[in-house]
Amino acid sequence: MRNIKLIIQYNGANYSGWQSQPEGKTIQGLFEDALKTITGEEINVIASGRTDAGVHALGQCACFMTGSLLAPDVLRDALNAHLPLDIRVMSAEEVAADFHARFSALNKSYIYLISTSRIISPFLLPFLWRIPQKLDVDAMTEAMDLLKGTHDFSAFRASGCGAKTAVRTITEASLNKLDKLNFMSLQISGDFLRFRFEGDAFLRHMVRNMVGTIVEVGKGRMQPGDITKLFAQGDRRCAGPTAPAQGLFLEKITY
Amino acid sequence: MRNIKLIIQYNGANYSGWQSQPEGKTIQGLFEDALKTITGEEINVIASGRTDAGVHALGQCACFMTGSLLAPDVLRDALNAHLPLDIRVMSAEEVAADFHARFSALNKSYIYLISTSRIISPFLLPFLWRIPQKLDVDAMTEAMDLLKGTHDFSAFRASGCGAKTAVRTITEASLNKLDKLNFMSLQISGDFLRFRFEGDAFLRHMVRNMVGTIVEVGKGRMQPGDITKLFAQGDRRCAGPTAPAQGLFLEKITY
Repeated sequence: MRNIKLIIQYNGANYSGWQSQPEGKTIQGLFEDALKTITGEEINVIASGRTDAGVHALGQCACFMTGSLLAPDVLRDALNAHLPLDIRVMSAEEVAADFHARFSALNKSYIYLISTSRIISPFLLPFLWRIPQKLDVDAMTEAMDLLKGTHDFSAFRASGCGAKTAVRTITEASLNKLDKLNFMSLQISGDFLRFRFEGDAFLRHMVRNMVGTIVEVGKGRMQPGDITKLFAQGDRRCAGPTAPAQGLFLEKITY
Repeated sequence: MRNIKLIIQYNGANYSGWQSQPEGKTIQGLFEDALKTITGEEINVIASGRTDAGVHALGQCACFMTGSLLAPDVLRDALNAHLPLDIRVMSAEEVAADFHARFSALNKSYIYLISTSRIISPFLLPFLWRIPQKLDVDAMTEAMDLLKGTHDFSAFRASGCGAKTAVRTITEASLNKLDKLNFMSLQISGDFLRFRFEGDAFLRHMVRNMVGTIVEVGKGRMQPGDITKLFAQGDRRCAGPTAPAQGLFLEKITY
Protein backbone atom coordinates (compact mmCIF):
# COMPACT_ATOMS: atom_id res chain seq x y z
CA MET A 1 0.00 0.00 0.00
CA ARG A 2 1.16 3.53 -0.77
CA ASN A 3 0.33 6.68 1.18
CA ILE A 4 -0.66 9.62 -1.08
CA LYS A 5 -0.73 13.23 0.12
CA LEU A 6 -2.90 15.77 -1.67
CA ILE A 7 -3.03 19.57 -1.57
CA ILE A 8 -6.61 20.64 -2.30
CA GLN A 9 -8.44 23.89 -3.01
CA TYR A 10 -12.20 24.24 -2.86
CA ASN A 11 -14.90 26.85 -2.93
CA GLY A 12 -17.07 25.65 -0.04
CA ALA A 13 -20.28 27.37 -1.21
CA ASN A 14 -21.84 24.30 -2.81
CA TYR A 15 -20.87 21.69 -0.20
CA SER A 16 -21.97 20.42 3.20
CA GLY A 17 -18.36 20.59 4.39
CA TRP A 18 -15.54 18.08 4.26
CA GLN A 19 -16.85 15.12 6.23
CA SER A 20 -19.01 12.41 4.64
CA GLN A 21 -22.53 12.31 6.01
CA PRO A 22 -25.78 10.59 5.08
CA GLU A 23 -27.30 13.71 3.48
CA GLY A 24 -25.77 16.54 1.46
CA LYS A 25 -22.83 16.62 -0.93
CA THR A 26 -19.51 16.53 0.93
CA ILE A 27 -15.98 16.98 -0.33
CA GLN A 28 -14.74 13.80 1.36
CA GLY A 29 -17.64 11.91 -0.23
CA LEU A 30 -16.76 13.19 -3.70
CA PHE A 31 -13.09 12.20 -3.24
CA GLU A 32 -13.99 8.71 -2.03
CA ASP A 33 -16.46 8.20 -4.90
CA ALA A 34 -13.84 9.39 -7.43
CA LEU A 35 -11.16 7.10 -5.95
CA LYS A 36 -13.56 4.14 -6.03
CA THR A 37 -14.05 4.75 -9.76
CA ILE A 38 -10.32 5.26 -10.42
CA THR A 39 -8.84 2.46 -8.29
CA GLY A 40 -11.76 0.12 -7.62
CA GLU A 41 -10.88 0.39 -3.92
CA GLU A 42 -12.98 1.57 -0.96
CA ILE A 43 -10.65 4.33 0.24
CA ASN A 44 -10.88 6.45 3.37
CA VAL A 45 -9.59 9.97 2.66
CA ILE A 46 -8.33 11.80 5.75
CA ALA A 47 -8.10 15.61 5.79
CA SER A 48 -6.05 17.82 8.13
CA GLY A 49 -9.37 18.88 9.61
CA ARG A 50 -13.06 18.86 8.79
CA THR A 51 -14.07 22.18 7.31
CA ASP A 52 -17.73 23.11 7.90
CA ALA A 53 -20.36 23.65 5.22
CA GLY A 54 -19.54 26.76 3.19
CA VAL A 55 -15.94 27.13 4.41
CA HIS A 56 -13.32 27.59 1.66
CA ALA A 57 -9.90 25.98 1.41
CA LEU A 58 -6.79 27.26 -0.33
CA GLY A 59 -4.38 24.71 1.08
CA GLN A 60 -6.36 21.83 2.56
CA CYS A 61 -4.25 18.71 2.91
CA ALA A 62 -5.54 15.14 2.74
CA CYS A 63 -4.03 11.67 2.54
CA PHE A 64 -5.14 8.17 1.69
CA MET A 65 -3.72 4.64 1.40
CA THR A 66 -4.05 2.84 -1.92
CA GLY A 67 -2.85 -0.34 -3.61
CA SER A 68 -3.02 1.46 -6.95
CA LEU A 69 0.25 1.71 -8.86
CA LEU A 70 -0.77 4.91 -10.66
CA ALA A 71 1.86 7.68 -10.43
CA PRO A 72 0.84 10.54 -8.09
CA ASP A 73 0.48 12.99 -11.03
CA VAL A 74 -1.77 10.52 -12.83
CA LEU A 75 -3.89 10.11 -9.69
CA ARG A 76 -4.09 13.91 -9.39
CA ASP A 77 -5.27 14.30 -12.98
CA ALA A 78 -7.70 11.38 -12.68
CA LEU A 79 -9.18 12.90 -9.51
CA ASN A 80 -9.52 16.31 -11.19
CA ALA A 81 -11.24 14.65 -14.14
CA HIS A 82 -13.84 13.17 -11.76
CA LEU A 83 -14.28 16.10 -9.36
CA PRO A 84 -16.37 19.22 -10.01
CA LEU A 85 -14.41 22.34 -11.06
CA ASP A 86 -14.92 24.06 -7.69
CA ILE A 87 -12.79 21.35 -6.05
CA ARG A 88 -9.23 20.92 -7.38
CA VAL A 89 -6.29 18.73 -6.45
CA MET A 90 -3.37 21.13 -6.85
CA SER A 91 -0.70 18.47 -6.19
CA ALA A 92 -0.27 14.82 -5.23
CA GLU A 93 2.82 13.05 -3.91
CA GLU A 94 3.72 9.76 -2.32
CA VAL A 95 4.71 10.13 1.34
CA ALA A 96 6.00 7.88 4.13
CA ALA A 97 3.51 5.34 5.50
CA ASP A 98 3.41 7.09 8.88
CA PHE A 99 2.36 10.46 7.45
CA HIS A 100 -1.14 11.39 8.67
CA ALA A 101 -2.88 14.52 7.30
CA ARG A 102 -4.39 15.27 10.71
CA PHE A 103 -1.99 13.93 13.33
CA SER A 104 1.21 14.98 11.54
CA ALA A 105 0.07 18.61 11.19
CA LEU A 106 2.29 21.01 13.14
CA ASN A 107 0.50 24.20 12.29
CA LYS A 108 -2.63 25.50 10.56
CA SER A 109 -3.60 28.95 9.40
CA TYR A 110 -6.97 30.52 8.64
CA ILE A 111 -8.02 33.82 7.08
CA TYR A 112 -11.38 35.45 7.84
CA LEU A 113 -12.71 38.44 5.88
CA ILE A 114 -15.33 41.01 6.88
CA SER A 115 -16.69 44.00 4.97
CA THR A 116 -18.08 46.93 6.95
CA SER A 117 -18.94 48.88 3.77
CA ARG A 118 -22.48 49.94 3.07
CA ILE A 119 -22.19 48.66 -0.52
CA ILE A 120 -20.26 45.51 -1.35
CA SER A 121 -18.62 44.63 -4.64
CA PRO A 122 -20.41 41.68 -6.34
CA PHE A 123 -17.01 40.02 -6.76
CA LEU A 124 -16.18 40.06 -3.05
CA LEU A 125 -19.61 39.39 -1.55
CA PRO A 126 -19.50 35.56 -1.75
CA PHE A 127 -16.27 35.46 0.28
CA LEU A 128 -16.88 37.68 3.29
CA TRP A 129 -19.16 38.45 6.22
CA ARG A 130 -21.11 41.63 5.70
CA ILE A 131 -21.41 43.86 8.78
CA PRO A 132 -22.47 47.28 7.45
CA GLN A 133 -21.57 49.34 10.54
CA LYS A 134 -18.54 50.95 12.12
CA LEU A 135 -16.58 48.61 14.40
CA ASP A 136 -14.06 49.64 17.07
CA VAL A 137 -10.94 48.17 15.49
CA ASP A 138 -8.64 49.27 18.33
CA ALA A 139 -10.70 47.33 20.89
CA MET A 140 -10.86 44.35 18.51
CA THR A 141 -7.06 44.37 18.09
CA GLU A 142 -6.64 44.47 21.88
CA ALA A 143 -8.97 41.47 22.20
CA MET A 144 -7.17 39.60 19.40
CA ASP A 145 -3.89 39.96 21.31
CA LEU A 146 -5.45 38.19 24.28
CA LEU A 147 -6.32 35.17 22.11
CA LYS A 148 -2.65 34.48 21.47
CA GLY A 149 -0.89 31.84 23.57
CA THR A 150 -1.93 28.57 25.15
CA HIS A 151 -5.45 28.61 26.61
CA ASP A 152 -8.48 26.46 27.28
CA PHE A 153 -10.75 27.38 24.35
CA SER A 154 -13.88 25.66 25.74
CA ALA A 155 -15.86 28.91 25.36
CA PHE A 156 -15.06 28.91 21.62
CA ARG A 157 -15.84 25.29 20.75
CA ALA A 158 -19.03 24.07 19.07
CA SER A 159 -21.39 22.00 21.21
CA GLY A 160 -20.80 18.88 19.06
CA CYS A 161 -17.01 19.12 19.21
CA GLY A 162 -15.51 15.76 20.14
CA ALA A 163 -11.93 16.80 21.02
CA LYS A 164 -10.70 15.41 24.37
CA THR A 165 -9.11 18.64 25.49
CA ALA A 166 -9.91 22.24 24.58
CA VAL A 167 -6.38 23.46 25.26
CA ARG A 168 -4.84 24.90 22.10
CA THR A 169 -1.93 27.20 21.27
CA ILE A 170 -2.49 30.17 18.99
CA THR A 171 0.79 31.55 17.68
CA GLU A 172 -0.71 34.33 15.56
CA ALA A 173 -3.95 36.28 15.85
CA SER A 174 -3.79 39.40 13.72
CA LEU A 175 -6.36 41.87 12.50
CA ASN A 176 -5.81 44.30 9.62
CA LYS A 177 -8.05 47.12 8.50
CA LEU A 178 -7.89 47.46 4.71
CA ASP A 179 -9.38 50.07 2.39
CA LYS A 180 -8.83 47.86 -0.65
CA LEU A 181 -9.05 44.16 -1.39
CA ASN A 182 -7.28 42.56 -4.28
CA PHE A 183 -9.48 40.44 -6.55
CA MET A 184 -7.91 38.80 -9.62
CA SER A 185 -5.11 41.31 -8.99
CA LEU A 186 -7.61 44.17 -9.43
CA GLN A 187 -7.98 46.59 -6.53
CA ILE A 188 -11.49 46.98 -5.16
CA SER A 189 -12.16 49.76 -2.65
CA GLY A 190 -14.19 49.41 0.53
CA ASP A 191 -13.83 48.95 4.28
CA PHE A 192 -12.49 45.52 5.10
CA LEU A 193 -11.20 43.61 8.11
CA ARG A 194 -8.83 40.73 7.59
CA PHE A 195 -8.25 38.24 10.42
CA ARG A 196 -5.42 35.74 10.35
CA PHE A 197 -5.05 32.91 12.86
CA GLU A 198 -2.23 30.44 13.15
CA GLY A 199 -2.01 27.66 15.69
CA ASP A 200 -1.21 24.04 16.40
CA ALA A 201 -4.81 22.90 16.01
CA PHE A 202 -8.32 24.31 16.18
CA LEU A 203 -11.54 23.03 17.75
CA ARG A 204 -14.78 22.74 15.83
CA HIS A 205 -16.11 26.26 14.94
CA MET A 206 -13.24 27.75 16.97
CA VAL A 207 -12.12 30.30 14.36
CA ARG A 208 -15.68 31.37 13.57
CA ASN A 209 -16.53 31.63 17.28
CA MET A 210 -13.43 33.73 17.95
CA VAL A 211 -14.31 36.05 15.03
CA GLY A 212 -17.92 36.30 16.23
CA THR A 213 -16.70 37.21 19.70
CA ILE A 214 -14.16 39.78 18.44
CA VAL A 215 -16.97 41.39 16.41
CA GLU A 216 -19.01 41.70 19.63
CA VAL A 217 -16.05 43.61 21.06
CA GLY A 218 -16.02 45.78 17.91
CA LYS A 219 -19.71 46.57 18.42
CA GLY A 220 -19.06 47.56 22.05
CA ARG A 221 -21.21 44.73 23.43
CA MET A 222 -18.17 43.07 24.99
CA GLN A 223 -14.87 44.43 26.31
CA PRO A 224 -11.43 43.20 25.22
CA GLY A 225 -10.82 41.93 28.78
CA ASP A 226 -13.84 39.64 28.46
CA ILE A 227 -11.63 37.30 26.42
CA THR A 228 -9.66 36.48 29.58
CA LYS A 229 -12.91 35.85 31.46
CA LEU A 230 -14.11 33.53 28.69
CA PHE A 231 -10.95 31.43 29.06
CA ALA A 232 -11.55 31.19 32.81
CA GLN A 233 -15.31 30.43 32.58
CA GLY A 234 -15.15 28.13 29.56
CA ASP A 235 -18.83 28.80 28.84
CA ARG A 236 -19.75 28.84 25.12
CA ARG A 237 -22.96 30.77 25.91
CA CYS A 238 -20.90 33.75 27.15
CA ALA A 239 -18.91 34.13 23.92
CA GLY A 240 -20.16 35.77 20.71
CA PRO A 241 -22.13 34.12 17.90
CA THR A 242 -20.54 31.89 15.27
CA ALA A 243 -19.39 34.00 12.32
CA PRO A 244 -20.78 32.87 8.92
CA ALA A 245 -18.84 30.16 7.07
CA GLN A 246 -18.49 32.03 3.76
CA GLY A 247 -15.86 34.46 5.10
CA LEU A 248 -13.52 31.68 6.27
CA PHE A 249 -10.55 30.30 4.31
CA LEU A 250 -8.37 27.42 5.49
CA GLU A 251 -5.08 28.86 4.26
CA LYS A 252 -2.27 26.42 4.89
CA ILE A 253 -1.21 23.33 6.81
CA THR A 254 2.41 22.97 7.90
CA TYR A 255 3.91 19.52 8.51
CA MET B 1 -35.14 66.92 -15.28
CA ARG B 2 -31.92 65.88 -13.54
CA ASN B 3 -29.04 63.89 -15.03
CA ILE B 4 -27.75 61.13 -12.73
CA LYS B 5 -24.39 59.42 -13.21
CA LEU B 6 -23.81 55.93 -11.77
CA ILE B 7 -20.67 53.87 -11.21
CA ILE B 8 -21.62 50.21 -11.46
CA GLN B 9 -19.96 46.85 -10.80
CA TYR B 10 -21.31 43.56 -12.06
CA ASN B 11 -20.37 39.93 -12.40
CA GLY B 12 -21.43 39.27 -15.99
CA ALA B 13 -21.80 35.49 -15.61
CA ASN B 14 -25.57 35.48 -15.19
CA TYR B 15 -26.50 38.14 -17.78
CA SER B 16 -26.97 38.49 -21.53
CA GLY B 17 -24.82 41.63 -21.45
CA TRP B 18 -25.68 45.29 -20.87
CA GLN B 19 -28.13 46.09 -23.64
CA SER B 20 -31.87 45.40 -23.36
CA GLN B 21 -33.10 42.77 -25.78
CA PRO B 22 -36.30 40.78 -26.26
CA GLU B 23 -34.88 37.62 -24.69
CA GLY B 24 -32.46 37.05 -21.84
CA LYS B 25 -31.84 39.01 -18.64
CA THR B 26 -29.82 42.17 -19.33
CA ILE B 27 -28.25 44.64 -16.95
CA GLN B 28 -29.81 47.64 -18.70
CA GLY B 29 -33.21 45.92 -18.51
CA LEU B 30 -32.85 45.35 -14.76
CA PHE B 31 -31.87 49.01 -14.20
CA GLU B 32 -34.80 50.30 -16.23
CA ASP B 33 -37.25 47.97 -14.45
CA ALA B 34 -35.89 49.08 -11.05
CA LEU B 35 -36.12 52.79 -12.00
CA LYS B 36 -39.69 52.30 -13.21
CA THR B 37 -40.60 50.89 -9.80
CA ILE B 38 -38.70 53.59 -7.90
CA THR B 39 -39.69 56.70 -9.91
CA GLY B 40 -42.74 55.61 -11.91
CA GLU B 41 -40.95 56.87 -15.02
CA GLU B 42 -39.97 55.05 -18.21
CA ILE B 43 -36.24 55.78 -18.09
CA ASN B 44 -33.58 55.05 -20.70
CA VAL B 45 -30.29 54.17 -18.98
CA ILE B 46 -27.21 54.84 -21.12
CA ALA B 47 -23.92 53.07 -20.38
CA SER B 48 -20.41 54.04 -21.50
CA GLY B 49 -20.56 50.99 -23.74
CA ARG B 50 -22.51 47.78 -24.15
CA THR B 51 -20.64 44.93 -22.51
CA ASP B 52 -21.33 41.51 -24.05
CA ALA B 53 -22.91 38.54 -22.31
CA GLY B 54 -20.57 37.23 -19.60
CA VAL B 55 -18.27 40.27 -19.49
CA HIS B 56 -17.57 41.70 -16.02
CA ALA B 57 -17.45 45.36 -14.99
CA LEU B 58 -15.53 46.97 -12.15
CA GLY B 59 -16.14 50.58 -13.15
CA GLN B 60 -18.96 50.69 -15.69
CA CYS B 61 -20.50 54.13 -15.91
CA ALA B 62 -24.11 54.88 -16.81
CA CYS B 63 -26.40 57.91 -16.78
CA PHE B 64 -30.11 58.65 -17.00
CA MET B 65 -32.50 61.62 -16.92
CA THR B 66 -35.20 61.70 -14.26
CA GLY B 67 -37.84 64.04 -12.89
CA SER B 68 -37.46 62.35 -9.50
CA LEU B 69 -36.39 64.58 -6.63
CA LEU B 70 -34.76 61.74 -4.68
CA ALA B 71 -31.21 62.52 -3.57
CA PRO B 72 -28.53 60.61 -5.54
CA ASP B 73 -27.58 58.50 -2.48
CA VAL B 74 -31.22 57.58 -1.97
CA LEU B 75 -31.54 56.60 -5.64
CA ARG B 76 -28.35 54.51 -5.28
CA ASP B 77 -29.71 52.66 -2.24
CA ALA B 78 -33.14 52.19 -3.84
CA LEU B 79 -31.52 50.76 -6.98
CA ASN B 80 -29.37 48.40 -4.90
CA ALA B 81 -32.47 47.28 -3.00
CA HIS B 82 -34.12 46.30 -6.32
CA LEU B 83 -31.10 44.86 -8.16
CA PRO B 84 -29.63 41.39 -7.66
CA LEU B 85 -26.49 41.19 -5.50
CA ASP B 86 -24.21 40.49 -8.48
CA ILE B 87 -25.00 43.99 -9.80
CA ARG B 88 -24.18 46.94 -7.51
CA VAL B 89 -24.38 50.70 -7.84
CA MET B 90 -21.20 51.82 -6.11
CA SER B 91 -22.00 55.56 -6.36
CA ALA B 92 -24.54 58.00 -7.78
CA GLU B 93 -24.21 61.73 -8.35
CA GLU B 94 -26.06 64.49 -10.16
CA VAL B 95 -24.12 65.78 -13.16
CA ALA B 96 -24.55 68.56 -15.77
CA ALA B 97 -27.35 68.03 -18.29
CA ASP B 98 -24.87 67.66 -21.15
CA PHE B 99 -22.98 64.76 -19.54
CA HIS B 100 -23.40 61.58 -21.60
CA ALA B 101 -22.01 58.27 -20.32
CA ARG B 102 -20.97 57.22 -23.84
CA PHE B 103 -20.17 60.41 -25.76
CA SER B 104 -18.44 62.21 -22.87
CA ALA B 105 -16.03 59.30 -22.25
CA LEU B 106 -12.42 60.27 -22.95
CA ASN B 107 -10.83 56.95 -22.16
CA LYS B 108 -11.70 53.34 -21.29
CA SER B 109 -9.61 50.52 -19.90
CA TYR B 110 -10.06 46.77 -19.96
CA ILE B 111 -8.28 43.89 -18.26
CA TYR B 112 -8.17 40.37 -19.70
CA LEU B 113 -6.90 37.34 -17.76
CA ILE B 114 -5.61 34.01 -19.05
CA SER B 115 -4.34 30.98 -17.17
CA THR B 116 -1.89 28.66 -18.91
CA SER B 117 -1.66 26.36 -15.86
CA ARG B 118 -2.58 22.71 -16.13
CA ILE B 119 -4.67 22.96 -12.95
CA ILE B 120 -6.69 26.06 -12.13
CA SER B 121 -7.74 27.28 -8.70
CA PRO B 122 -11.54 27.01 -8.24
CA PHE B 123 -11.53 30.64 -7.08
CA LEU B 124 -9.94 31.99 -10.26
CA LEU B 125 -11.56 29.73 -12.87
CA PRO B 126 -14.78 31.78 -13.36
CA PHE B 127 -12.77 34.90 -14.22
CA LEU B 128 -10.24 33.80 -16.81
CA TRP B 129 -9.67 32.02 -20.12
CA ARG B 130 -8.06 28.65 -19.66
CA ILE B 131 -5.36 27.79 -22.23
CA PRO B 132 -3.40 24.89 -20.70
CA GLN B 133 -0.31 25.14 -22.92
CA LYS B 134 2.90 27.12 -23.14
CA LEU B 135 2.55 30.39 -25.06
CA ASP B 136 5.39 32.44 -26.56
CA VAL B 137 5.07 35.54 -24.38
CA ASP B 138 7.92 37.40 -26.11
CA ALA B 139 6.18 37.15 -29.48
CA MET B 140 2.86 38.13 -27.86
CA THR B 141 4.47 41.21 -26.27
CA GLU B 142 5.94 42.21 -29.65
CA ALA B 143 2.48 41.87 -31.22
CA MET B 144 0.85 43.86 -28.37
CA ASP B 145 3.25 46.75 -29.06
CA LEU B 146 1.99 46.89 -32.66
CA LEU B 147 -1.61 47.35 -31.45
CA LYS B 148 -0.73 50.67 -29.81
CA GLY B 149 -1.49 53.88 -31.68
CA THR B 150 -4.19 55.00 -34.11
CA HIS B 151 -5.26 52.29 -36.56
CA ASP B 152 -8.20 51.00 -38.57
CA PHE B 153 -9.39 48.09 -36.38
CA SER B 154 -11.79 46.62 -38.98
CA ALA B 155 -10.08 43.21 -38.66
CA PHE B 156 -10.91 43.21 -34.94
CA ARG B 157 -14.56 44.27 -35.02
CA ALA B 158 -17.54 41.93 -34.69
CA SER B 159 -19.65 41.42 -37.81
CA GLY B 160 -22.67 43.14 -36.22
CA CYS B 161 -20.70 46.22 -35.09
CA GLY B 162 -22.56 49.39 -36.10
CA ALA B 163 -19.81 52.01 -35.60
CA LYS B 164 -19.35 54.36 -38.59
CA THR B 165 -15.57 54.21 -38.53
CA ALA B 166 -13.23 51.50 -37.26
CA VAL B 167 -10.40 53.95 -36.56
CA ARG B 168 -9.52 53.92 -32.87
CA THR B 169 -6.55 55.00 -30.74
CA ILE B 170 -5.05 52.56 -28.25
CA THR B 171 -2.85 54.33 -25.74
CA GLU B 172 -1.88 51.27 -23.73
CA ALA B 173 -1.61 47.61 -24.67
CA SER B 174 0.42 45.73 -22.07
CA LEU B 175 0.94 42.06 -21.28
CA ASN B 176 2.29 40.76 -17.99
CA LYS B 177 3.29 37.22 -17.14
CA LEU B 178 2.44 36.48 -13.50
CA ASP B 179 3.19 33.46 -11.33
CA LYS B 180 0.63 34.53 -8.72
CA LEU B 181 -2.78 36.12 -8.77
CA ASN B 182 -4.25 37.90 -5.82
CA PHE B 183 -7.72 36.74 -4.80
CA MET B 184 -9.36 38.34 -1.74
CA SER B 185 -5.80 39.48 -0.97
CA LEU B 186 -4.68 35.85 -0.84
CA GLN B 187 -1.90 34.82 -3.22
CA ILE B 188 -2.73 31.92 -5.54
CA SER B 189 0.08 30.39 -7.57
CA GLY B 190 -0.11 29.46 -11.24
CA ASP B 191 0.86 30.66 -14.70
CA PHE B 192 -1.14 33.72 -15.67
CA LEU B 193 -1.19 36.34 -18.41
CA ARG B 194 -2.71 39.72 -17.71
CA PHE B 195 -3.61 42.01 -20.60
CA ARG B 196 -4.46 45.66 -20.13
CA PHE B 197 -5.86 47.90 -22.86
CA GLU B 198 -6.56 51.59 -22.68
CA GLY B 199 -7.98 53.69 -25.49
CA ASP B 200 -10.43 56.36 -26.56
CA ALA B 201 -13.13 53.87 -27.54
CA PHE B 202 -13.46 50.23 -28.54
CA LEU B 203 -15.47 48.49 -31.28
CA ARG B 204 -17.78 45.59 -30.57
CA HIS B 205 -15.72 42.49 -29.53
CA MET B 206 -12.53 44.48 -30.22
CA VAL B 207 -10.73 43.62 -26.97
CA ARG B 208 -11.71 39.95 -27.17
CA ASN B 209 -10.68 39.77 -30.84
CA MET B 210 -7.33 41.40 -30.08
CA VAL B 211 -6.72 38.93 -27.23
CA GLY B 212 -7.76 35.99 -29.45
CA THR B 213 -5.33 37.15 -32.13
CA ILE B 214 -2.46 37.72 -29.68
CA VAL B 215 -3.01 34.16 -28.39
CA GLU B 216 -2.64 32.89 -31.98
CA VAL B 217 0.73 34.63 -32.01
CA GLY B 218 1.55 32.97 -28.69
CA LYS B 219 0.71 29.56 -30.19
CA GLY B 220 2.98 30.26 -33.18
CA ARG B 221 0.09 30.17 -35.64
CA MET B 222 0.57 33.88 -36.45
CA GLN B 223 3.62 36.15 -36.37
CA PRO B 224 3.79 39.48 -34.51
CA GLY B 225 4.13 41.29 -37.87
CA ASP B 226 0.75 39.89 -38.94
CA ILE B 227 -0.85 42.59 -36.76
CA THR B 228 0.37 45.24 -39.23
CA LYS B 229 -1.03 43.17 -42.14
CA LEU B 230 -4.39 42.88 -40.35
CA PHE B 231 -4.60 46.68 -40.06
CA ALA B 232 -3.89 46.99 -43.80
CA GLN B 233 -6.28 44.20 -44.93
CA GLY B 234 -9.08 44.97 -42.48
CA ASP B 235 -10.40 41.42 -42.83
CA ARG B 236 -11.97 39.96 -39.70
CA ARG B 237 -11.55 36.41 -41.07
CA CYS B 238 -7.76 36.82 -41.05
CA ALA B 239 -7.56 37.69 -37.32
CA GLY B 240 -7.77 35.21 -34.43
CA PRO B 241 -10.92 33.91 -32.75
CA THR B 242 -12.92 35.92 -30.20
CA ALA B 243 -11.57 35.25 -26.69
CA PRO B 244 -14.22 34.05 -24.17
CA ALA B 245 -16.19 36.76 -22.34
CA GLN B 246 -15.54 35.47 -18.81
CA GLY B 247 -11.88 36.66 -18.78
CA LEU B 248 -12.78 40.27 -19.61
CA PHE B 249 -13.23 43.10 -17.12
CA LEU B 250 -14.27 46.63 -18.04
CA GLU B 251 -11.97 48.40 -15.59
CA LYS B 252 -12.55 52.14 -15.74
CA ILE B 253 -14.06 54.98 -17.76
CA THR B 254 -12.37 58.37 -17.67
CA TYR B 255 -14.39 61.55 -18.39
